[in-house]
Amino acid sequence: MIDVIAFDADDTLWHNETLFSLTQEKFVRLLANYHSPEWIEQRLYATELRNLQYFGYGIKGFTLSMIETAIELTDGQIQGRQIQIIIDAAREMLQTPVQLLEHVGEVIPRLAAAYPLMLITKGDLFDQETKIAQSGLADYFTHIEILREKSEATYQALFKKYRIDPQRFMMVGNSLKSDILPVLALGGRAVHIPYHITWMHETVATDAAAPAPYVTLEHIGFLPALLAQ
Amino acid sequence: MIDVIAFDADDTLWHNETLFSLTQEKFVRLLANYHSPEWIEQRLYATELRNLQYFGYGIKGFTLSMIETAIELTDGQIQGRQIQIIIDAAREMLQTPVQLLEHVGEVIPRLAAAYPLMLITKGDLFDQETKIAQSGLADYFTHIEILREKSEATYQALFKKYRIDPQRFMMVGNSLKSDILPVLALGGRAVHIPYHITWMHETVATDAAAPAPYVTLEHIGFLPALLAQ
Repeated sequence: MIDVIAFDADDTLWHNETLFSLTQEKFVRLLANYHSPEWIEQRLYATELRNLQYFGYGIKGFTLSMIETAIELTDGQIQGRQIQIIIDAAREMLQTPVQLLEHVGEVIPRLAAAYPLMLITKGDLFDQETKIAQSGLADYFTHIEILREKSEATYQALFKKYRIDPQRFMMVGNSLKSDILPVLALGGRAVHIPYHITWMHETVATDAAAPAPYVTLEHIGFLPALLAQ
Repeated sequence: MIDVIAFDADDTLWHNETLFSLTQEKFVRLLANYHSPEWIEQRLYATELRNLQYFGYGIKGFTLSMIETAIELTDGQIQGRQIQIIIDAAREMLQTPVQLLEHVGEVIPRLAAAYPLMLITKGDLFDQETKIAQSGLADYFTHIEILREKSEATYQALFKKYRIDPQRFMMVGNSLKSDILPVLALGGRAVHIPYHITWMHETVATDAAAPAPYVTLEHIGFLPALLAQ
């Protein structure tokens, strides 16, 4: 029934958003003398959204947005030294070893023995390739695709490229917006495994009705049992 | 004799290094009260090299390196306002329309009618995809590959992925280091079309002997005649 199982990477196979959250907490502390945490977070998010079209996803774009927000929120008074703290935090994020989510280390090799697996992620090529290499999982995936954006159009292009029948394709991921809804809209199957933090930009309105049913799992450890059904 | 012709993109199909140079000139002017242009450029290059392993190639990494260099060269005294000027210059780079090199607009469609063409570039996925889309050339390429780094290993992986016989593969590009030497080392053919500016990191020692002969062309307009030979 299933020809290919595809996995999202960040927050599906390994931790990612926690790292952004921790860095954002540092950022809030850096500006604590100027503004409330809520206001700092709100302005940072506005800057990130505005910059997405120029910088795309990833740590470097996030860092440039933190720097811009710091300049804005201090009326340009922030000093180089403090900005260096932001850049150092970014470099630290980039050096943090990949930490697999629970069960991933067992489930991926096990499924790879039975299905061709794909990794479909988005964001910064350099960051993503570093994490894939570090994860030790690269060899289990027949194809690895790093996309600029996950949308119906980009999934459709992948289906064409690999001659995949959407009805025999299953996508597994933590983001309703990027992993689940576009795949369902194309007639594919989707398994949602929520992560405990979701970046605001990845959230969808609860009334954004899914065009087809999808399965939600508490963790990836349940996936083999689902497939065996 | 040739199954596939592959092209580098930046400074082979469209202008790129000029944009970095112009931004670097602005950066030097910004710090003109602190240091000599030579010293500023030398420190910026040192920062770029140090950061390459974390940030990779591309405008965002370059921007973070400019900011770090500005902080270093002013002993942390630089103000947020001036750093904003650096970020604005980066956004301007990202918004500059792609400008094709001379002859590219005629040669690529003409060759695409006779050969499968590939685009093999490196750097930031988001920047590169934006430029490819803007160039109007995407449809002429059978395959587009954006690599983290161009090395013997990454070319070898492409040959395997697309089942390419290196002896029937031709790479066309402006960088001896990235486009010519690794391809020759693998038994492929290479055509060097120098660009008028080469980023220092892409230069090779003149005694780095090429392991096989390669052709140098003044501009891409000569490529059809070379292939007809």
